[in-house]
Formats: sequence, structure tokens, C-alpha cells
Amino acid sequence: MQTLITQQTLKDRFLAVRYTTETICKSLERDDYSVQPEASVSPPKWHLGHTTWFFEQFVLSQFKPGYKNFHKDFSYCFNSYYNNVGSRILRVNRSNMTRPTVDEIYNYRSYVSSHLAEFLETEISEEIKGLVEMGLQHEEQHQELLVYDIKYIFGHQPLFPVLDTEIQLKSEEDDIEFISVKEGIYEIGHKCNETFCFDNELGVHKVYLNDYKIANRLVTNAEYIEFIEAGGYSNFNYWHADGWTHINENNITSPMYWHKQDGKWMYYTLKGLKEIDANLPVNHVSFYEAWAYAEWKDLRLPTEFEWEIASSQLNYGQLWEWTNSAYLPYPKYAKADGAIGEYNGKFMVNTMVLRGSCLATASNHSRPTYRNFFTPESQWQFSGIRLAK
Amino acid sequence: MQTLITQQTLKDRFLAVRYTTETICKSLERDDYSVQPEASVSPPKWHLGHTTWFFEQFVLSQFKPGYKNFHKDFSYCFNSYYNNVGSRILRVNRSNMTRPTVDEIYNYRSYVSSHLAEFLETEISEEIKGLVEMGLQHEEQHQELLVYDIKYIFGHQPLFPVLDTEIQLKSEEDDIEFISVKEGIYEIGHKCNETFCFDNELGVHKVYLNDYKIANRLVTNAEYIEFIEAGGYSNFNYWHADGWTHINENNITSPMYWHKQDGKWMYYTLKGLKEIDANLPVNHVSFYEAWAYAEWKDLRLPTEFEWEIASSQLNYGQLWEWTNSAYLPYPKYAKADGAIGEYNGKFMVNTMVLRGSCLATASNHSRPTYRNFFTPESQWQFSGIRLAK
Amino acid sequence: MQTLITQQTLKDRFLAVRYTTETICKSLERDDYSVQPEASVSPPKWHLGHTTWFFEQFVLSQFKPGYKNFHKDFSYCFNSYYNNVGSRILRVNRSNMTRPTVDEIYNYRSYVSSHLAEFLETEISEEIKGLVEMGLQHEEQHQELLVYDIKYIFGHQPLFPVLDTEIQLKSEEDDIEFISVKEGIYEIGHKCNETFCFDNELGVHKVYLNDYKIANRLVTNAEYIEFIEAGGYSNFNYWHADGWTHINENNITSPMYWHKQDGKWMYYTLKGLKEIDANLPVNHVSFYEAWAYAEWKDLRLPTEFEWEIASSQLNYGQLWEWTNSAYLPYPKYAKADGAIGEYNGKFMVNTMVLRGSCLATASNHSRPTYRNFFTPESQWQFSGIRLAK
Amino acid sequence: MQTLITQQTLKDRFLAVRYTTETICKSLERDDYSVQPEASVSPPKWHLGHTTWFFEQFVLSQFKPGYKNFHKDFSYCFNSYYNNVGSRILRVNRSNMTRPTVDEIYNYRSYVSSHLAEFLETEISEEIKGLVEMGLQHEEQHQELLVYDIKYIFGHQPLFPVLDTEIQLKSEEDDIEFISVKEGIYEIGHKCNETFCFDNELGVHKVYLNDYKIANRLVTNAEYIEFIEAGGYSNFNYWHADGWTHINENNITSPMYWHKQDGKWMYYTLKGLKEIDANLPVNHVSFYEAWAYAEWKDLRLPTEFEWEIASSQLNYGQLWEWTNSAYLPYPKYAKADGAIGEYNGKFMVNTMVLRGSCLATASNHSRPTYRNFFTPESQWQFSGIRLAK
Repeated sequence: MQTLITQQTLKDRFLAVRYTTETICKSLERDDYSVQPEASVSPPKWHLGHTTWFFEQFVLSQFKPGYKNFHKDFSYCFNSYYNNVGSRILRVNRSNMTRPTVDEIYNYRSYVSSHLAEFLETEISEEIKGLVEMGLQHEEQHQELLVYDIKYIFGHQPLFPVLDTEIQLKSEEDDIEFISVKEGIYEIGHKCNETFCFDNELGVHKVYLNDYKIANRLVTNAEYIEFIEAGGYSNFNYWHADGWTHINENNITSPMYWHKQDGKWMYYTLKGLKEIDANLPVNHVSFYEAWAYAEWKDLRLPTEFEWEIASSQLNYGQLWEWTNSAYLPYPKYAKADGAIGEYNGKFMVNTMVLRGSCLATASNHSRPTYRNFFTPESQWQFSGIRLAK
Repeated sequence: MQTLITQQTLKDRFLAVRYTTETICKSLERDDYSVQPEASVSPPKWHLGHTTWFFEQFVLSQFKPGYKNFHKDFSYCFNSYYNNVGSRILRVNRSNMTRPTVDEIYNYRSYVSSHLAEFLETEISEEIKGLVEMGLQHEEQHQELLVYDIKYIFGHQPLFPVLDTEIQLKSEEDDIEFISVKEGIYEIGHKCNETFCFDNELGVHKVYLNDYKIANRLVTNAEYIEFIEAGGYSNFNYWHADGWTHINENNITSPMYWHKQDGKWMYYTLKGLKEIDANLPVNHVSFYEAWAYAEWKDLRLPTEFEWEIASSQLNYGQLWEWTNSAYLPYPKYAKADGAIGEYNGKFMVNTMVLRGSCLATASNHSRPTYRNFFTPESQWQFSGIRLAK
Repeated sequence: MQTLITQQTLKDRFLAVRYTTETICKSLERDDYSVQPEASVSPPKWHLGHTTWFFEQFVLSQFKPGYKNFHKDFSYCFNSYYNNVGSRILRVNRSNMTRPTVDEIYNYRSYVSSHLAEFLETEISEEIKGLVEMGLQHEEQHQELLVYDIKYIFGHQPLFPVLDTEIQLKSEEDDIEFISVKEGIYEIGHKCNETFCFDNELGVHKVYLNDYKIANRLVTNAEYIEFIEAGGYSNFNYWHADGWTHINENNITSPMYWHKQDGKWMYYTLKGLKEIDANLPVNHVSFYEAWAYAEWKDLRLPTEFEWEIASSQLNYGQLWEWTNSAYLPYPKYAKADGAIGEYNGKFMVNTMVLRGSCLATASNHSRPTYRNFFTPESQWQFSGIRLAK
Repeated sequence: MQTLITQQTLKDRFLAVRYTTETICKSLERDDYSVQPEASVSPPKWHLGHTTWFFEQFVLSQFKPGYKNFHKDFSYCFNSYYNNVGSRILRVNRSNMTRPTVDEIYNYRSYVSSHLAEFLETEISEEIKGLVEMGLQHEEQHQELLVYDIKYIFGHQPLFPVLDTEIQLKSEEDDIEFISVKEGIYEIGHKCNETFCFDNELGVHKVYLNDYKIANRLVTNAEYIEFIEAGGYSNFNYWHADGWTHINENNITSPMYWHKQDGKWMYYTLKGLKEIDANLPVNHVSFYEAWAYAEWKDLRLPTEFEWEIASSQLNYGQLWEWTNSAYLPYPKYAKADGAIGEYNGKFMVNTMVLRGSCLATASNHSRPTYRNFFTPESQWQFSGIRLAK
């Protein structure tokens, strides 16, 4: 987690990240900040408080001389899953906290931001710089979650509100082609010499890959509609047993946000409810759906290693791409001590790896070695399908 | 449902009721309006919209010439349980509607209030007056629910916010005494000649009562603490089978809002978390708890008929009082036609009758014949215990 | 609970009841004894053990000098819900006890039966005679449950096995007529001077009844099919709110055991799967269904008091008849001390009263004052519909 | 799936496998055959029928001229999860089928066994021989499940019955030592030239392994008790997030079948409830527990590849060994067509690989390339812990 940036740069970066978070929320009404329509979807105000708490908890309260916490109960309110840090509100109850109010949370943000900016003007150790950078990476991840959660909140209510945002997918215009990669030994992982990376990417190591081919672009909405209309959701042969159970128990017959109205496929986007654009990459599919689509095509998903080795030849960055790799530790993986050690390792079971990035991802997170992960039924993130064989 | 009041009086009463509802919410923050920590607790903004929708749906849109609905989707958003009126949002999803905003709902209230006030200045039929009165009674019931729900929302979060309100219980200072009533035939039910009543109170009819005695006052907190400290919550002999299952599955060991801190009983009130006042009547007990307390005292709860006959001799009006009567139709009960018929009759199973009224009840609802009802495990309403034998 | 019968008669009665229980099971295979397809349906072998344990626990182990329990762990295995007697296996786990085996349980029955028969030849107190009679009444109730449970077990599996039994409903051949009863004071309850009764029937007391009319016979299958075909199960106006939720969540569209095959209504009877006999009384309806049927006819169900007063004029005894009375204590009700006190009182909430008896009821249980009770959604007992107005 | 054995040998093997299955059940009482205390535990009689149905469905009914199914409804009763073959009874309802009886199922076994033995004396194709071998492998897997399920059924009831069986773990007597393996390219997978293997083992391929060390023996009960007594089950730092949730929601504080009585650790074995033998390998741990134990030791579990490469140097065969590999397809994996294709591939998500074999495994299943798999919370199989670093 070396940073190699000057403190001035770090301070600028700090303020820029904090500002970006607030920009995402700029067109929200007060009413939009507090809801949690699903246990896994956090209220926007909680994201604002939690990313602030992270800096207060791991940097200011431990290292800044004379720092006083903004409020004695906020750690209880805004801790997410760090057992090492103490008790916290149950996840499902986040939206029941009407207090602190949105205004108080913005005050909390200002208080912590100015204290941290001030602190970054004093001389601080490499360790502290590392923690600040960690907090910024963390806040950038929450910026992405904020977009997912706002979309979920808006896309699941009768009036389908609209968010003022630049996010807009582009067509996948190329004909589909398969890029060939030769059998052999390859190197995987992040060297971490110059830029930030997470502990789960570390430890460059060799893997042996067989000959494989990987598609030059993502599957489009038009192609995915073919799968739906061919009865893909009602033929168990294309599905994992768990996937089949999941889609049946939850009546899932399309990607999230799709609605069939008067024989036409519509979907909710951040611009409102619209007719589906056939050439955009299909979005909001679960791992089960991505895998089933590949089965139906008699192809498969790439592994995360195949993806990483081919990444320089792929156009990517529109959507996270499901791989057929389970999220597991690399051979040299070592968990950090204390609360920071809870960041990644404890999720290395029952989740699948996604590679690439999406339009809601902070640009500095977009790198060939980045390992994102979600449970196989998750649909609410921006995720698509790349085929391999 | 005769009203016998002039239209001017009705218009004044209409405006007063609308104003009172908004007064209850006057010290809420925007953040407080949207949450639903329990399926049965509605967000305050939903109450504001729903009571408004009731007048729009049942009066304005049907009877006021040229009236245009404020918004085409609000019926979907604010219908509660009137199947006759069409589809509606699922109860558990009420708090996920961030839109309409609180401001839009207040605009909706103004729009409907001014249209209805205007309409009350034209000549309208007795039937319409009856419907307006019904809507006012309905809104008054929701005023009471608003207080319950705000208390639930505030009392179940870490910072224990406070509501600006006059509601304050008084001590039960008298020694407990039992008033005797003689065996014989008595008349039950509302004559409905001069004042409003609900259909479930109608149909004056005779019942035969045996000799009985009924307490002059409610059970106090001090008396209820004796029950707790005597192990009342861990001795199955005092409980219904369903009650025993319920308190064990939900870890209930005291009335709602009670917390034992450092050996002392505290409770949340609308003024914040406080030490318990020993002489106030015990509040927020379920029917199961009321019954168990009576069993422990080797006494019983009164029936609703015993309560009604003795009511003139009781001081009452602090808390609703659980009776040992199931909520069932009176001999001459007839359900109204259409949506209004859904108001009461369909709840006449699995619920118990409470009599009296509480400090959050509109004063004109406080009458000897009023039949309130809740499921036996409910604790969130303002409900206490009166003993009989 | 006076019995007034000689000990010789009591011993004969004891042996006859024990024999009858075993007769019900005589055509079962070993495989049929152990299953519990629903938490509320007990395995036949459990009934055999439990009724035996009742005599061992409440009579032999307490009163017979030198009596040794058959097995130290059987009380844990066969206690049903008597918290006073100690811990017991969870109800849902009854069918997981493969041991003791059916053979061992029959040995247990023989052991307890011969010890008790022997004991009844010595001089015993009135109290003990009362307990023996209680045990016999209890076993007779379980004979009825055995029939219900065997029917449930057989009627919910692919091969629809058949039970060798005499139980056979008869046609309701009369035209429907309504018997009128005059308004006035009536006496309710069991005098208990000469025959056995349960504590919930005791305490003769006066009730005031209004003029009412009650049907001379039960509703038939043909009449109930009219309700189904008129869309009764899809019109919420006929249903309690809880009933409507219940039938929708559980996809209930007919009485239990009914199947529509090739456009024809079939049902499972103890003789196998058959076409429905139009003139038999409709069976296996819940309270919700009985009430909805009455709503649809613009009639109502009788109260338990109306039923009791008219009972001498009714032909009854085919099926239990749902009343619109909640199961509540009579004015003079007093719970017995200790475990026997758990027999009735603790169920007096959330249940509805059924009156009459059915073809599976022991004949001595069939009396005008008998109060049976089930939760309103129960369908598996033999229960039908009598109308009133 | 080549077999290369003569038909006579295949017939002998067929009869031997069929006989072995019945031997496992030889000391069961009729009562023991029908229960299903957990959805994932099948009744022994169902195993007997299902393994028979497999031969009837996939061999006899399709290939033996003139073969008549034993009973038209048995396919519905005994299909497990083969969607391609048609509808079937819900898994959770298996134990509710009291018919066919155990005796009828044994008759079904005889009928199918003799028809198949007869068929094996005629000339049959390699494809059919492959299907028969598949059925035998399948029945051998069910022999193992039968032992697990009987242990579960017996170990979860008050009387703790005993099974007549030879299965007996041996002490892990060696000092723990770590075997070193050098970094490099290794070959993984089954060559399938001479012996049977499953499709998930096929496709020999290269993997690159880093230097690693693997323990020479399994973790013992004594060593695992140290983990428990050091508070291993109450320190979240050792657990996956999902594992921590799972053990807390299910109150898991030890391996399955362990009970602390009077300060001493006891466990249920097939010989009854006994004091724990300190030197035996710890059994009935979940993946979560195995992983947490390794975390506590500051070590890790091996991957399935590390295990396979080192296997010739390991003593193994007592218990299945959890690896830290998710169950995923090998690079050359191809799913078979039709129902047989449902055997393995559709479970390749949310499961972890176990390697080795256990005392209940058929000896011909014990091979270095065999890939067993279970969900990470499963405890009921015979599974232990081998450490690596």
C-alpha cells in the first residue's frame, strides 16, 4: 500500500474525493437519503456518514493530537462490519436511524474533512499516509455503491425518479470476435511498486493457462433478449442448481430493472423508464444469469486469470464482468492485522470474482489486477457478460 | 352515522382536524417522516398522504363537480387496505417511496383541504356530510397512530430523539378499590341518535351479566415491576400458550420501551429516556401481558360489557384498557356496502377489544361504547391494565 | 368431574377405550406410524405413547404403590404440552424419534394398561377415579385426532392409501329450513351432576339472546361448489382480512383434500380418492371458509350460545360446526391447579369454538354443552357449516 | 467412463454392490427407515428405492427388451434431482411417503436386481456397461450417504440408538510434520484409461504450484479442543463473515454430535454416546470450522491441487479433508448430455472441494483425483482438517 505521492497531492486528492461523493448526491431530495428497501442497499445518508467515520476512526482519533470526536455515538451509528472496532447498529436497521439528520451528517463531513485537511499539512508518517489513501480508496468504492443504491431506491418505487448524472453506457458496436491466447505460464497479481492496490491483488505469482479464446466485447441487450425469448429462464439445463432455485423462488425472469410493457422490453435507467437500447451491453445480470447465458451459447465465462492476461487486448470499463472464478486468496496472501484485515479476507467464500470496472467506478480503480467480488445472485451492481471458450 | 351539525360547523371542524394532524408533526425533521422500522408502523409522511387521499377518493373525486385529482399515481401510493378501490403499494414498501417528497405531500394536503373547504360551502347532501364526518373520524384515528408511530420510530434508535408534545400521563393516586355491579340484564351499544359512532358500536342490545367487581383505577408501574421481579415472565402458568410462545420467541421480558440499566428500570417516553415513574399507570403492555398479570394476581380482566356498564363509575382516559372480550360483531351488526364496509368487519377475528381511550385519542372519540381492537401481542399502542373479579 | 360409576364399570370402560384406540390403527403398516407431515399432525405412534404416558404420569407413578416407570426417558418423549411436568421433545421433532419402536410402544401400552387395570381392582379414592376418567376422556379425544392425522398422512402422499374404518358421512337430505328461537334469557353450561364434563363447560349461567333463526341441516358439497364456482375464493369482500391473507399465501382454493381433475371435483376420503358426493355435508372447511360462505349467502354463523339453546332441535353429529364465538372462559370459569389446569384455559385466545361432534368422536363426548376449539385456519379436523340469521 | 471389465465381472460387482447397501441397513428397525429430521437427510428407505430407480430409469426401461416398470408411480417417488426425467416429490416431503412400505421397496430392489443381473448375461453395448457402472458408482455414493444419514437420525434423538457396523476411526499417532513440495508445473486430473472416474475429474491439465508444505496427518480431537477452549468460537477474527453469521445464527459451538456434560466433552458415535477419544482425528467439522481452526494456528488449508500432488506421501482415508478450493470445472470439462449431465456440473457454485475419502467410502472411490464437494456449512459428512502453509 505504498503511495509515493507528496502530501500536497494527497491533500488535494483527499478534498477532491470528498467533493465527488457529495456531487453524486447533489440532486437528491432530503426524502431520498434515508431509505433502505433491501438489507444490502444502504441509505445514502449512511454512506455519507460511514465514509466520514472511517477517517475519524482510523486516522484522526488515533493520530491527530487533541482531536475530539464529533459525536460520541456516531461510531455506533456508522461502523459497517468492523467487529474489531466495537458494537454497531444492525445492518437492517440503518434506515431506521432518522437521527442524525442529513444536515447533521453534512456537518460531520465538514468537521472531519477540515480536520483531516489540516492534519495533512503537518508532517505525517508513511503509515498514516497509507491509512488516508486506504480511506480514499474506501470512499471511492462507496461512491460506486452510492450510485448502485440510489438506482435501486429510485428504480423500485412507483414514480421512478431521475438522477442528475453523466453516467451513460455506449454501444458495443464491433462484431463479436474471439481473441486467442496461447497455452503457457503467466504472471498474475499486482506489483504494487508505484500505485495503490488492495491486499487481495498482492503477491505476483505464476499460473499455467491452457489455450483459450476470449470475446472482444460484451454481450448486448439484443443478444440477451434472444436468450430470454428462447425460453432461457424456463429451461433448468442452463442453470446451476442454486441458480435455478434462486430464480424460481424470486420469480426472476430478466435482468434487474427490466419490465415488459405491452409486449415491449423497457428498463429503468437513472434517466427514467425507457425502451431498451438493443446495442448497449446487457447490465444488471447475476452470475447465475451470466453463466446460464454462456451455457445456452455453448460457451463459457473466462476465469479471472484468463481475463487478466488478455486484458490489454480487451475494450473494457463499461461494466464489471463476471468470471467463473471463486474469490479465493492468492498463494502469497496475508491478511493485515486488526480492523483493516477485515477488509477483504473474510469474504473469500461463497462469492465470485468480477473483473474490469464500470462507469460508476473511480478511474484510478480501473486496473487489470483489481478483484471485485459479489455473491452469485447479486444483480444490483453494474455487471455484464463476456464470453470465452 | 348521523351528524346533525350545520355545514359551517362541519367546515370549521374539518379545518381544525386537518390542522391538528399537522401540529403533531410540527417538530419533526424531514428525516423523521419516511421510516418504517416495523411493517405495522407507517412513515409519518404516509399518514399525511393517506388521510388526505381518503377525502379525495371518497368525497371529492366522486361528488365535487369538476374536481381533478392532484396526481394520477397517488391513489396507488396512499391507499391502505381498501381492496374495493384498486391496487396499492405493499404495506412493507411504504417507507421505500421517497417520492412524493414531504413537501409535495404538504402541497397535496393543502390542495385537498382547500377544495374540500370550498365544497363544504356549497349545498351538500346528508350522505356526503356523513362521508366527510367519516373522513374526519378516520383522520382523528390516524392522529393517534401518528403519535404511536413517532414514538416507535424515536424509541428504537440509538439517539432517542424527543417530540415536542403535551402528552403526559398522571399518577394513579387512589388506593385500589373494587366497584361492585349487580347481576342482571343490561343494555350495550351506541344509540347513535345525536353523535357520530362507528358501525361496530351500533345496535343497542341486551346482555346478561353476573355479579362482578371492577377496579377503580389502572395498575401502576410499581405494581407491574412487582410482577416482573416475582419472575412473571419466566413462569408459564400465568400465560396463554400463544403468549408464552410469543414472549419467548421475541425475548420479551418487559413492556415495550423499558430498559434495565445499572439495575434500574428506565423507559423511553416522548420526552426522552427516563427513570420509570412508579405511580404512573403501566403502559405499552400487550393483551398477553395484561392477562398474565391478572392471572398472577388471581384476578382477571373485565369483559367489554362489564367495562361499558361500569364506565360511568371509572376514572378513565389515560390509556386504552385491554378486556377479555374477542372483537366480534354485535347481534344487529350489518356491514356497510362497498369500501366503507371494509372499515371494521373484516378485522373481527384474532383481535381483542380495548375500551376507554388514551391521551393521544381525539376527545370526541372518548365514549363508553367505543370499541378499539388490536391483536393480542401488540404493545406499541398506549394500553394499560384494569383488573376485575 | 364427578363420575358416579362403580369401579368395575370404570375398569371395563378403561379396557374398552384402550382397545378402541388400537383398533383404529389395526390396518396401519409399520411405515405409517412415524411420520409428521405437518407440525400439528402427530405420528400415530406418538398418540399411542402419549395417551399411555398420561395414565403413567398422572395416576400410576403418583398413586400406585411400588409402581416403576416403564422407561426413564419416556416422559421426555411423550409429554405433549404440560410445562408443569418437565422438559419434553419439541413438537416438530416427534417424528424424528424412530425409537422407541412401534413394538416397544405397544409393550408400553400393555404394561401400563395391565398395571392400571390391576390398580382399579383395589380401593381407590374419588380423586383418582376422576383422574382415570380424565385420562379416558383424553384418550378418546386422541382417538379422534388419530383419525384426523391418519387421514392427513394418507391424503398427502402420491399413492393415496386407504384406511379400514366404518366412518362414513350420510346425505343431508332435508330441504334447508330455519328454526326460530325467541328472544330472552337462557341458561348455558353443563350441570355436571351425573356425567363427566370438562372445566370449560362448567358454571351454568344466564345469557340474553335476541330473536334468531338457525338452519336445520349442514351445508352440502353441492351448495359449497356453487360458492367456489361463483368465484368465492377470489372475492375479498367475503373474507376476514386474516382469512384473505391466509388463503392467498397458502394458495387455498377449496376445502382440504379436494382436487380438480379433468374438470371434475374429486376428494380424498379414507376409502381413497373419489368423485365428490353432492349431497354429503361439506367437510374440512376452516373457520375462514365457513364465514366467507355465510357472507356470500348474506347469512351468518350462529354463536355458540345460539347453537346450544337450539341443539335439541338440530340433527347433528356428522361434523363439528364452526360458530362465530371466540373461545373464552365462562363467567364462573376456574382453572384447575397444576398440570391438569393446562388442559383448556391456556388456549383461550386466537381460537374459535366448534359445537356438536363428528363421526370420529367418541359417543360420550357428544353433548350439547361440549366446547371444541381450533385456530380459524384449521382444515384438517372434520368440520362443516351450519347457517344462521 | 471406460470400464474394461468383462460382463461376468460386472455382474458380480453389481450383485456385490447391491448386497452391500442392504448390509448397511441390516440392523435397522422398520421405524428407522422413514424419517427425515433435516431436509438434506433422506430416509433410509428412500435411498433404497432411489438407487434402484436409477437402474430402472437409465438402464432397464430404456434398453432391456420387454422390461415393465415395477410400479407406475415409483419414478415420481424416487427421482432425486433429475429435472430431465420429469416431476418428482419435493425433497422435504420424502419422509411423508409412508407408502411404498419398506417391504415393498425391498421387493422393488429384488425385482430390479434380478432383471438387471439377467440383462448382464445377455450381450450389451459399451454404452450400457458404462451406464451400469455409473449406477454402481452412484449406489456406492449413496452407501456413504446412508451411513451419514443414519448417524444423523440416531444422533438427534433422545435414546441415541446404536448401529451394528465395523466403521471405527484410528488414532493419528504421528507427531505432526510438514512435507515440502517444490515450486513448479504439475499435472492434475484423472487419465481415465483403465478405471472409472467422474466427469469432474477428467481432462489432465497442468497447474503451476508455488513452494508449499502440507501436514502428514489430520488434526486430532485433542488439538481441536484446544481451539474451543481458547475461545475459537467466540472470536470473529478467525472466521469468514458468512461462517461467523452461520455459527451464531445456529448456535454452533463445536463439531456436530459433540455435547458437554458435567464439564466433559462427549460425542455421539455409531456405537452410542461416549467420552471423546483425544487422539482420533476431529470429525464432523464444516469448512468454516476447518478454516477458522487453520486461521487460529496461523496456517491455512491446502488447495485441492496441492493435496492431489502430495497425496502419495499422505496417510489418508480416514476422513474427507476440506480444501480451500471452490468446486469449479477443470479447463477441459464438458458436461454430458441429458440427465447424466446433471450429475456434477450444476453444483459448481457455492461449494468447496474435499479430497481423500472416509471410512464409509467404497474402497474403489478412494483415489487421488476424486473431487468430493459440499456447501461450506455442512457438518454431517465425515470430514476433518489437514493443515498446510
